[in-house]
Amino acid sequence: MLTGVKLMVKYPSGSLAAFRKTAKKPKVRKSYQHRKGVNFSDRGMTLEQQINESNKYYLQEEIAVVHKKPTPIQIVKVDYPKRSKAVIREAYFRQASTTDYNGVYKGYYLDFEAKETKNKTNFPLKNFHEHQIFHLDECLKQQGICFTIIGFTSLERYFVTPASFVIHAWNTKDKSSMTLQEIEDHSIEIKSGFHPTLPYLIAVDHFIADRKVNNGK
Amino acid sequence: MLTGVKLMVKYPSGSLAAFRKTAKKPKVRKSYQHRKGVNFSDRGMTLEQQINESNKYYLQEEIAVVHKKPTPIQIVKVDYPKRSKAVIREAYFRQASTTDYNGVYKGYYLDFEAKETKNKTNFPLKNFHEHQIFHLDECLKQQGICFTIIGFTSLERYFVTPASFVIHAWNTKDKSSMTLQEIEDHSIEIKSGFHPTLPYLIAVDHFIADRKVNNGK
Repeated sequence: MLTGVKLMVKYPSGSLAAFRKTAKKPKVRKSYQHRKGVNFSDRGMTLEQQINESNKYYLQEEIAVVHKKPTPIQIVKVDYPKRSKAVIREAYFRQASTTDYNGVYKGYYLDFEAKETKNKTNFPLKNFHEHQIFHLDECLKQQGICFTIIGFTSLERYFVTPASFVIHAWNTKDKSSMTLQEIEDHSIEIKSGFHPTLPYLIAVDHFIADRKVNNGK
Repeated sequence: MLTGVKLMVKYPSGSLAAFRKTAKKPKVRKSYQHRKGVNFSDRGMTLEQQINESNKYYLQEEIAVVHKKPTPIQIVKVDYPKRSKAVIREAYFRQASTTDYNGVYKGYYLDFEAKETKNKTNFPLKNFHEHQIFHLDECLKQQGICFTIIGFTSLERYFVTPASFVIHAWNTKDKSSMTLQEIEDHSIEIKSGFHPTLPYLIAVDHFIADRKVNNGK
């Protein structure tokens, strides 16, 4: 269905002319192209795209409300042209203080970070930022359901790992990565599919069930 | 303590020179100035500043983890100057799809929007955007604790109103505002204080208690 889809960029009004000027022929996003002999369930999407599409599905079906947080920007200068919308002319990327995703599912607070690697045997811990680990830890203290989604893109394997394990690994001296074996042992693996693209709530259901058992409910 | 504090703007490195050029004398934020005969508990802060400071306090004390979401921005052009950080040179404000605040408290998902008015007798519903009402409704369906914080700045009165009442008012035909009386009847009023500046979790505790009663727990 998405085979050979052309790159659709939503340009705000007013910038289309500028776009046409430089873009002589329509770009085709390589990752969307049909490749033979490959598992197409993830349709070549990045992990972020898969999660965003899953969240859209979960929202439409009223299963969960999860959104990606916007990138924090420090705005310094804004122009207000006549008969046109405001244009930010000088701004800087700011350090985020949370993870990328949070939301609500069946009354539970969800909080997670998604990362992908081309490695095949381990996931380097330097891919996480300290503020993300700190934030996951803070949310755990508030009884949130906190985890990471790690995608081994070369293997097309996706793991939902409880934040407690990731925080433990991060705090382990001289540990620079989590091996695939460790991740397999401590995570719930999910398969890339169609509706939703990455059904990570299956793993969340397991976490909720575990919690109920541990709370004696 | 904050009397006569000068406007502190955190400019990213590299832009200070430009700032000096235009700003001939240091600006003093009017709202921070000491006014005689006025209740100082809110120290002239905007509602957003009060909530942000309260969230900082709640986070430091490990009481709750609530953050304001960044404004969503559509980035079109970024410069990468040598020996300096990336500068966004063309970007546009995008429509948000959620409320401004969410987070986790004692295992509960919190979601809210904060608005202030100078009116003294009513709060115009047009201050809410449709996407905010829609989002609150979606989060309610997932059993989140959803509300608004309405500040009547002229009266220095702050109300935490359950989202269900705001959504009901929004959906009522020919209703353009909520009267102060209606808000008083359906909200928990909170007093501006010091630690935290706006202790809105007091109201949340009431909502949690009500929910437990209604669930028969």
